[in-house]
Amino acid sequence: MSRPAEPVPPGGTIGILGGGQLGRMLALAASRLGIRTHIFAPEADSPAFDVAAARTCADYGDEGALAAFAAAVDVATYEFENVPVETVRFLEARIPVRPGSRALETAQDRLKEKRLARDLGARTADFGGVSGRAELDERIAEIGLPAVLKTTRMGYDGKGQAKLLSAADADAAFAAMKGAEAILESFVPFAFEVSVVAARGVDGAFAAFDLTHNEHRNHILHRSIAPAEVSADAAAQVVAVTRAIADALDYVGVLGVEFFVVIDAAGERLLVNEIAPRVHNSGHWTMGGAATCQFEQHVRAVCGWPLGATTRRARRVEMLNLIGDSVLDWRNLAAQPGVSLHLYGKKTPRPGRKMGHFVRLLDN
Amino acid sequence: MSRPAEPVPPGGTIGILGGGQLGRMLALAASRLGIRTHIFAPEADSPAFDVAAARTCADYGDEGALAAFAAAVDVATYEFENVPVETVRFLEARIPVRPGSRALETAQDRLKEKRLARDLGARTADFGGVSGRAELDERIAEIGLPAVLKTTRMGYDGKGQAKLLSAADADAAFAAMKGAEAILESFVPFAFEVSVVAARGVDGAFAAFDLTHNEHRNHILHRSIAPAEVSADAAAQVVAVTRAIADALDYVGVLGVEFFVVIDAAGERLLVNEIAPRVHNSGHWTMGGAATCQFEQHVRAVCGWPLGATTRRARRVEMLNLIGDSVLDWRNLAAQPGVSLHLYGKKTPRPGRKMGHFVRLLDN
Repeated sequence: MSRPAEPVPPGGTIGILGGGQLGRMLALAASRLGIRTHIFAPEADSPAFDVAAARTCADYGDEGALAAFAAAVDVATYEFENVPVETVRFLEARIPVRPGSRALETAQDRLKEKRLARDLGARTADFGGVSGRAELDERIAEIGLPAVLKTTRMGYDGKGQAKLLSAADADAAFAAMKGAEAILESFVPFAFEVSVVAARGVDGAFAAFDLTHNEHRNHILHRSIAPAEVSADAAAQVVAVTRAIADALDYVGVLGVEFFVVIDAAGERLLVNEIAPRVHNSGHWTMGGAATCQFEQHVRAVCGWPLGATTRRARRVEMLNLIGDSVLDWRNLAAQPGVSLHLYGKKTPRPGRKMGHFVRLLDN
Repeated sequence: MSRPAEPVPPGGTIGILGGGQLGRMLALAASRLGIRTHIFAPEADSPAFDVAAARTCADYGDEGALAAFAAAVDVATYEFENVPVETVRFLEARIPVRPGSRALETAQDRLKEKRLARDLGARTADFGGVSGRAELDERIAEIGLPAVLKTTRMGYDGKGQAKLLSAADADAAFAAMKGAEAILESFVPFAFEVSVVAARGVDGAFAAFDLTHNEHRNHILHRSIAPAEVSADAAAQVVAVTRAIADALDYVGVLGVEFFVVIDAAGERLLVNEIAPRVHNSGHWTMGGAATCQFEQHVRAVCGWPLGATTRRARRVEMLNLIGDSVLDWRNLAAQPGVSLHLYGKKTPRPGRKMGHFVRLLDN
């Protein structure tokens, strides 16, 4: 991967793999900086197409389309972690792709991800790989129950997961993996979840936004509040872990790392849960809530610009997702003075579909 | 002009006449609200084309293109006051255009504009229409010198203006109008210029941002600071005048009104200088500096949404334009923690060309 010393200047073009709301918000942020965007996505109704200077609607395996895309952009990035590593490698042979294929490969695999965290001295749940039914029993014996069986790849928003409360659940849980490689993780009795959204620049500079406290409903992020209420020590620790992960992966761009917060007799412990090699839903509060939003921060990092300031702009900032039909309340939300509304331009509000979000700055 | 009771919902389309930076920033704001944008502009390299869902590159007199544009959008607006009134009338027969042709017609003509202000009880410079050379002498006799002769139409950023210090300047000033209808205005010895950027909704609701203090260089806005330092009485007066103007024109959308502030023995007086029927350069500080930015506010008004809150987000907010080559400093600006940078994606930085701006929140 080539690393030009010179940044992508205003008027340059950033290519984005993926056309969902994250790609859309990246494109809007790039446009604010005078940078053109080219969206590459397989779905004709990709929300990001509506705000991009150029669009390629093609499969991630279409090498002709990828070569033309590479020729048309100065640098490429992606908005989600399930873009094929082969696609990123194909592009990397032609143009800088940030973050690179190594980061993507690690983040796509829950086993690699957790091993990296452990290698860097971070805490995680107990875990082990599961390739077959017999191996699942071995892991249960090692790790104990309750536990959670997850596919190592392609899972998000609770998909590809099965909970095991007793050994009797093993058959059904294994069947739910549909033959995919899996990871068994000890069930973590966490008090709450926090995440760090941070950025690493081409020059190795690092900047983290405030930790957020995240609340889920039906395995989908419902609400994030910044800053999370954890001790200053714990916050410093998770930021250090996040920086170590970014450094180890020679990461360029924004990443999100989720942590379980366990509070017991031994005190407060933070366990790495997941690494997202991209802008992160729990970072949406930075839109208006921080001096630089995570989308602009990613564009800055990917284009080789200096990272922006991450200062929070109110005592507390709250972000709520608008999932499915809850977006139909847009008119009431738009009428509330303290609400900053963001809608993704998706046509049909299906259950579980992220349609928008809103941010509130809370000063009291 | 039809006025649907129902607002344009998320997923609807706003058509924008004009493809400059104001159209671009309107399109970005509409996209944040999930509203599609369709830009109509004659210039192939229009900066707004890069961020729009749909583009029409055609002349404002192309009725076929206008009819197709009207059929493709739910509501139309414009980003500059020199779009032909006939174009807006043609569209108004088909779809709501906000603000409407009456507002546009008034704002396009300095005589109509000043007469409206006077009729509403506002102060202005002394003025009179000038259609021929002899009439100029009559006006000079009435108004006195120094004075400024301006074309009634199509002037902006100091173009189409000539100063008269003595009667000997009359010939050259008249010649500079190139036969166009003109207005002679008494020279106002103003201390500084302020402007109000405000919005009026479909329902008549009205909301003004804080007054800004504006500094020009070579007749082009250089810097705006909010709030302007004028007395609370004076501020209330100019907001009342702005609201009266908006009501009189049945205005829908954001408008900017510029005032001269004269300070003499008689105290502080504010004189209406110009009405801009659109988002206004002096309102760019609202991007990050106010709870709602002027571009979102315009989209809200035009789409029949409730107006957003206009609360200022810092003790003082400063906006500086990047004109011509000053944009080449983007890298240093991007590295300053307190600077929020906005670049317009224009390729060539010609002298006097508005290439971008930046906003600083000043808390001390």
